[in-house]
Amino acid sequence: MKIAILPGDGIGPEIMNQAVKVMNALGEKFETETVPVGGAAYAAQGHPLPESTLKVAKEADAILFGAVGDFKYDTLERSLRPEQAILGLRKHLGLFANFRPAILYPELAGASSLKPEIVSGLDIMIVRELTGDIYFGQPRGVRAAPDGPFKGEREGFDTMRYTEPEIRRIAHVAFQAAQKRGKRLTSVDKANVLETFQFWRDIVTDVHKEYQDVKLDHMYVDNAAMQLVRAPKEFDVVVTGNMFGDILSDAAAMLTGSIGMLPSASLDANNKGLYEPSHGSAPDIAGKDIANPLAQILSLAMMLRYSLGKTEQADRIETAVKSVLKQGLRTVDIFEAGTTKVSTTQMGDAVVKAL
Amino acid sequence: MKIAILPGDGIGPEIMNQAVKVMNALGEKFETETVPVGGAAYAAQGHPLPESTLKVAKEADAILFGAVGDFKYDTLERSLRPEQAILGLRKHLGLFANFRPAILYPELAGASSLKPEIVSGLDIMIVRELTGDIYFGQPRGVRAAPDGPFKGEREGFDTMRYTEPEIRRIAHVAFQAAQKRGKRLTSVDKANVLETFQFWRDIVTDVHKEYQDVKLDHMYVDNAAMQLVRAPKEFDVVVTGNMFGDILSDAAAMLTGSIGMLPSASLDANNKGLYEPSHGSAPDIAGKDIANPLAQILSLAMMLRYSLGKTEQADRIETAVKSVLKQGLRTVDIFEAGTTKVSTTQMGDAVVKAL
Ligand SMILES: CC(C)[C@H](C(=O)O)[C@@H](O)C(=O)O
Ligand SMILES: CC(C)[C@H](C(=O)O)[C@@H](O)C(=O)O
Repeated sequence: MKIAILPGDGIGPEIMNQAVKVMNALGEKFETETVPVGGAAYAAQGHPLPESTLKVAKEADAILFGAVGDFKYDTLERSLRPEQAILGLRKHLGLFANFRPAILYPELAGASSLKPEIVSGLDIMIVRELTGDIYFGQPRGVRAAPDGPFKGEREGFDTMRYTEPEIRRIAHVAFQAAQKRGKRLTSVDKANVLETFQFWRDIVTDVHKEYQDVKLDHMYVDNAAMQLVRAPKEFDVVVTGNMFGDILSDAAAMLTGSIGMLPSASLDANNKGLYEPSHGSAPDIAGKDIANPLAQILSLAMMLRYSLGKTEQADRIETAVKSVLKQGLRTVDIFEAGTTKVSTTQMGDAVVKAL
Repeated sequence: MKIAILPGDGIGPEIMNQAVKVMNALGEKFETETVPVGGAAYAAQGHPLPESTLKVAKEADAILFGAVGDFKYDTLERSLRPEQAILGLRKHLGLFANFRPAILYPELAGASSLKPEIVSGLDIMIVRELTGDIYFGQPRGVRAAPDGPFKGEREGFDTMRYTEPEIRRIAHVAFQAAQKRGKRLTSVDKANVLETFQFWRDIVTDVHKEYQDVKLDHMYVDNAAMQLVRAPKEFDVVVTGNMFGDILSDAAAMLTGSIGMLPSASLDANNKGLYEPSHGSAPDIAGKDIANPLAQILSLAMMLRYSLGKTEQADRIETAVKSVLKQGLRTVDIFEAGTTKVSTTQMGDAVVKAL
């Protein structure tokens, strides 16, 4: 089993250190290779996703990813900016299925900006399509408007598109995820306005025939954004496109108030995957040993479970994380009066000890 | 002054009755004409936006709109469904600037799913562009994919586009709104992924030169969705495109927990406008005299203020609404123990009395 380690920028390297420490403490041998990505790769090799990094990622059985982005790269032209690395990895590796759990640990219920009764026990799974939609659709660019009321004026444009096989495969993934959970799937679209998402709705409805044990609902994206705020516990699994998924999965993560706890997985058709925290690179707190490493550590657990088939090891890590929370250990982002403030390193050590 | 009254479907007619009652109680003469729209227009004349309705709307100085949509029209082909009326009115009348306030009345702080300290005193204004973007961009449809990894497969597609003049005019409107409020504007885009919104960001930055007294921030849409949940009071005015605005304005409205209170305005270049509640037609409770008429009544106040220049009358209505809330009168959607539950009609009567 070969694991590619891509720490990236900002707090990426320091939280990755903790995850690697936990991996090494599992008592198994993993072959790992660490390569730069994002701003770090640009600084070292002139490109956020160098060929050599892509090669290591392609040849690995799974990828553990930190985070990318730093203020100092904000002025680069877009094709060289750190986030292009993550878009490039998704596309080149065919990582079309993004799993973003939004789970609220009972110990952290106070961290949410929502009332405890609205969010306590929250456990929803957002399945976001990750290689299609307006993220990658051609044509796109800036041109003179070819028609319309402002014909001839400069305009920016992009193309939203989804083919039938792309919708089918993400629908299958989402229905299967729902079968393993509460057997309810909400497909989020904007079928009342967009052709792409009327098509999406038709195909998802068709795939549903193969999963009659799952209850399927269709919901418009604006309504979904409202229901996430109003009554998030009414959702079980949510499936949606790349653009809507970007927005809704971040909103759902923030409902928990503890985005520093949330891992994510991005899988290809063979369950090879890239695993990364749902939070960003937080360059403002980088190098201070105060970042929360638990999302990175839980991303490692997801990797063991989904790509490496090591359920028992994944369980061990998740139990250890719950145990450090029960012990009252908190990094600053989730600290509350009455708990013990710890550093990034101390949190990593505590998880190792609890294993 | 000619006012077109378009009650629409579901609870539309009954809340409109209350708004008209309030208008008549102002002690001024308004010339009004009431015409069907949405499902009601389809039922009567075979189209959700008949020529005759469009004509009345075009000739009026302002339009007071209820809500459209009912279960019984869900199976119609898309071009005949009620919501096409609202899209058609926006496009034909050039109503490009949508103002959606999200205000939390102190008396209703308990209705929010967020903690009181996060939302009490909330007062943000979302300015949504309403006639461009992927809502109307051509080409769109279903076709055989012309290229890409799934070339030849069926695909749904849409075009996102914004021309420079479209971005400039909505930016001017938003900067001017910010000047009249807290002098802070957040422009929401996805410049890290979309050409349309990199272009948007460049133009908004350029327009900013004319409004140096306003502090401008740019924020990615996924981050904006998070910040709305985490700390909504940090926003003052938000400006964004049609699609992102659809999602964010509904999320922002729901933060208040009292969407039955929120009006909206959609204006053209000359401040002619369409005024409607932010909530929908709620067909499940239609005809029961339990819907909250206050968003419709406050939409009337917005109409008097923005399109008819009758600031004093607008103030009177808004003060009357605050006074009925202080009296403890509540329709069922905002009812809490210790307040007095009233019907739609009783609420309308109470506002008239408080005028
Ligand atoms: C960095 C950016 C391109 C990316 C996205 O929009 O997908 C990020 O927001 C995410 O959700 O992983
Ligand atoms: C009904 C629908 C077409 C409309 C929109 O998406 O604009 C609605 O959601 C709104 O926000 O007014």
